[in-house]
Amino acid sequence: MAAADQNPVKFGVIGCARIARKLIRAISLSPTTTLAAIGSRSLSKAQKFLSENRIWLGEAMTSRMTVKVYGSYEGVVEDEMVEAVYLPVPTRMHVKWAVAAAERGKHVLVEKPVGVDVGDVEVMVEACRVNGVQFMDGTMWLHHPRTRRLRGLLDDQLLFGDLRMIHSSSTFRDADEEFFKDNIRVKADLDALGALGDAGWYCIGAILWANNYKLPSTVTALPKVTRNDEGVILDCGASFHWEGDDVNVATFHCSFLCHESMDLTMSGSKGTITLRDFIIPYQEHSASFDFSSDVKFVDLHIGWTSTPKRVEVSTELPQEALMVQEFGRLVHNIKVLGSSPDEKWPGISTKTQLLLDAVKKSIDAGFKTITV
Amino acid sequence: MAAADQNPVKFGVIGCARIARKLIRAISLSPTTTLAAIGSRSLSKAQKFLSENRIWLGEAMTSRMTVKVYGSYEGVVEDEMVEAVYLPVPTRMHVKWAVAAAERGKHVLVEKPVGVDVGDVEVMVEACRVNGVQFMDGTMWLHHPRTRRLRGLLDDQLLFGDLRMIHSSSTFRDADEEFFKDNIRVKADLDALGALGDAGWYCIGAILWANNYKLPSTVTALPKVTRNDEGVILDCGASFHWEGDDVNVATFHCSFLCHESMDLTMSGSKGTITLRDFIIPYQEHSASFDFSSDVKFVDLHIGWTSTPKRVEVSTELPQEALMVQEFGRLVHNIKVLGSSPDEKWPGISTKTQLLLDAVKKSIDAGFKTITV
Repeated sequence: MAAADQNPVKFGVIGCARIARKLIRAISLSPTTTLAAIGSRSLSKAQKFLSENRIWLGEAMTSRMTVKVYGSYEGVVEDEMVEAVYLPVPTRMHVKWAVAAAERGKHVLVEKPVGVDVGDVEVMVEACRVNGVQFMDGTMWLHHPRTRRLRGLLDDQLLFGDLRMIHSSSTFRDADEEFFKDNIRVKADLDALGALGDAGWYCIGAILWANNYKLPSTVTALPKVTRNDEGVILDCGASFHWEGDDVNVATFHCSFLCHESMDLTMSGSKGTITLRDFIIPYQEHSASFDFSSDVKFVDLHIGWTSTPKRVEVSTELPQEALMVQEFGRLVHNIKVLGSSPDEKWPGISTKTQLLLDAVKKSIDAGFKTITV
Repeated sequence: MAAADQNPVKFGVIGCARIARKLIRAISLSPTTTLAAIGSRSLSKAQKFLSENRIWLGEAMTSRMTVKVYGSYEGVVEDEMVEAVYLPVPTRMHVKWAVAAAERGKHVLVEKPVGVDVGDVEVMVEACRVNGVQFMDGTMWLHHPRTRRLRGLLDDQLLFGDLRMIHSSSTFRDADEEFFKDNIRVKADLDALGALGDAGWYCIGAILWANNYKLPSTVTALPKVTRNDEGVILDCGASFHWEGDDVNVATFHCSFLCHESMDLTMSGSKGTITLRDFIIPYQEHSASFDFSSDVKFVDLHIGWTSTPKRVEVSTELPQEALMVQEFGRLVHNIKVLGSSPDEKWPGISTKTQLLLDAVKKSIDAGFKTITV
């Protein structure tokens, strides 16, 4: 890690979306990365964005080097100093810029949803593979130490048993009615997947993660979907089922029309795990979950033998910085140690998008069950 | 209430199921009711049951009167002293004994699931209506003061907004493998509805309650169900949808194969309410729920503006005693004040069973969407 810290990966950010502010701060916080360039469709927009976000750049970083500013995305992709790009542009533009970056030997960190469909993801992943660069999507919660802690419990046969049921929700409601007209997430030509791509991505990813990325056998959309005038999904849900004798079922609900929620409940044969903030922890430096195991009802069923235990997991760096740090570590291993890119991350993106496609297919087929 | 307390309703308990122990204690705790008789299929079983459960009877009650013991269900139904019966017998026997009791002018408190299907419920409800006696099912949580508190929040347009999404689970796993062979809840000829009737009843009831008993337009079972060798459901789920432009969706999962859970999450356009113990509170005298309203993400989306607030609601009497107390109050109003039986409670039982039937119908039709 020390070596990676001494020669941090130089990041170019393509696009000035709101989420880019968070990532610029993360790139600055992570010891394995540094911000080298920002590109927008206009130079003045890029300059304004950088000046507004200088506050997130650590002093060490700003003194260490100058951040280059480009009035085009090409500028970043063609800058030979830039070693990795971060793509917070609308989903429909991911393939073009991810492939352009990969072909120039740059590593690719792309926002979710990764593609409009799994075909998009495969093109990007393949371009990275052929060019020997790292691919990763911007799902931050997977990098929080809480997630590792949860993994340990899920795998614990004595405390948790077999995974039986997952329910997840990812919902928010922008008070600003303009959101429903103007936000890229509700524009068919920009982010065609709406709430399914933006919020449902996390639920689908969590369900897959809990199942160690074993794909379900069937995907069935819940039989109602709410869309805006452009046909973009504002609210939907689905259930997943895995084959086999044992129960293994998952449901999720994603929405731009419900009060803020980021729920993840995982029930096993012997234990239950609940998170209310799995995507963005309530606070940066400490996150918790509730866990109960082998709970019974007391005699007469007038109470429970115990209440869920709250488990706290602290972290020095916020999860987005840990994500960028891990990305930087992998890039360092490739460029300095000659390692191959880690195939885990493109695999996760591909499977997540595959299930997202299946949900959309089920919706489009009148809520029929889709065999994966 | 004072008048009702001075002349408590004399209860006869028909059957010595485990749940009857809890109700005997509740009848004793409630100031409006008293235990008058117990009947089982054998006299010795009834005697043993009473002697084992005397501990739950308050001293005042045991000194006040003798509890009669019958070696048949008929004995209780034909005892002229008995004013109301409680029916914890297997579901398939409810109609026979509820009707027999109603025809003898006795009020009827019946365990859930009320019937094998809604036809059963209608027969019982009609027998009670014709004979002017009160009908109520044994859903206890509806009588907890927490439930009233939740109702107030759900109806609060400013704090909660419009109801959008409900998810509920009712699951438990009996460690004893014998359960799956011998418990009446998994016997086709006794409780044919299995986990759907026993555990799903609560989820369906909660979803209806949250919607002020407005029936959904469609019911769709989740596309997998687990059954035992007799074909009794051990695990299933469903989604409900209400018509109209606004999102209004509910999902539930009920199981005899998952670790203990009694979850109820209700999401509105402006607030979220979560309970983890909605059917049986963790403790008898205090219950809580989590509530959040108008929560947003802080700048950069690196946290939330607030965490859910835990609201505690205390109760002197446990919820089952409050249920029996309410039943006693209604009976008192009928017999002393000449009131009509309260139609709310049979209405709730009927609608709950109607949706339970729809879930079963959807399962039997290969998980098709059923129009209610």
